[in-house]
Amino acid sequence: MSLRSALLALLSSGPLTGYDVVKQFSTSVGHVWHAPDSQIYPELRKLHAEGLLSSRPVPWGSRGATKTEYTITPEGAQALREWQDRPLAYVRERDPAHLKAAYFEWAGPGAAAAQLRAHVAHYEEQRRQALEQIRGIEDHTNPTLARRLAAYPEDQWERITRFKIYAYEGQVARAEQEIEWARRGLRLLEELGEPAGPDDEDTP
Amino acid sequence: MSLRSALLALLSSGPLTGYDVVKQFSTSVGHVWHAPDSQIYPELRKLHAEGLLSSRPVPWGSRGATKTEYTITPEGAQALREWQDRPLAYVRERDPAHLKAAYFEWAGPGAAAAQLRAHVAHYEEQRRQALEQIRGIEDHTNPTLARRLAAYPEDQWERITRFKIYAYEGQVARAEQEIEWARRGLRLLEELGEPAGPDDEDTP
Repeated sequence: MSLRSALLALLSSGPLTGYDVVKQFSTSVGHVWHAPDSQIYPELRKLHAEGLLSSRPVPWGSRGATKTEYTITPEGAQALREWQDRPLAYVRERDPAHLKAAYFEWAGPGAAAAQLRAHVAHYEEQRRQALEQIRGIEDHTNPTLARRLAAYPEDQWERITRFKIYAYEGQVARAEQEIEWARRGLRLLEELGEPAGPDDEDTP
Repeated sequence: MSLRSALLALLSSGPLTGYDVVKQFSTSVGHVWHAPDSQIYPELRKLHAEGLLSSRPVPWGSRGATKTEYTITPEGAQALREWQDRPLAYVRERDPAHLKAAYFEWAGPGAAAAQLRAHVAHYEEQRRQALEQIRGIEDHTNPTLARRLAAYPEDQWERITRFKIYAYEGQVARAEQEIEWARRGLRLLEELGEPAGPDDEDTP
């Protein structure tokens, strides 16, 4: 359900070939809803079959070849609105990092500390990417956003832009919270006299 | 992979019938790794078939009926250790709340505010549950923990207890961060002059 909403949201910025959907997905909405290319193409075909996207062949290269370009239909836009107006169904907690931490007494020497350092590294990278997205949105260099704004009257630009920034700010805040939690865990291990494990450069 | 680790972790507190696994799961490890009963029974049978659990019939009721009681085997304990020593494979971000927020411009009047209030309510409940778990662990009234501690020498109690608390503290911190993010969103909507939507008591 979420992937189709993500694709409709991306295509609400303007028509795109399947190839360009994949490319733009990974540099925009794919940061909040990751999907592999292998899921994107079939989902585009499904959305097309259901009438939420229309398609037309567009020239590709110089040899008379074509590619399929997708455009969101009024039904597709309506599906986007319905998705927004439907309350989110929250799923029950399933967190592999919390699960693992709850049973750190089973970890070998240094393994718990290595896990927490990997947690810090993962979320530092997540934070970096989210901050990069925010910069691209704020200065309008994000190509998907630039296309989107061009399709809307200027008095809509602020809210469109601020909602995107708000979503990425949520990612930044979450990443910072996870980093803080992992650092607290490293202090706990030290307090309990657990071995610190190999240095960062040795962790996988 | 995580469900089997969660089940082995639970059974490392002592032997349990399938029925008691399901019961204790929902009041302990199920708070960090939710699984429906319909997944737990088949996974227990798989762990048994693989030799990670042993089983024996135990009397059930007064009519000579029996139930299957599962005990973690040395191979099961080894699998727990290997899980702890293997670095976690982090999955790419997929957050339906962030996805939705990024496209709030498609939301009908009041729908974005209703979504954010539901976000607050969801994470307030998550925080409440995690705090309740922490209380039960701190005062040793959590039955799963009480069983577990009885099986370990007293000098291990502190670390076993503190790792469990640490995991739930991670849930509390995450819940608080999500509540803060949603409240920031509500302020953003107000600032943008979006309608506040129906009152809390009217939201689904």
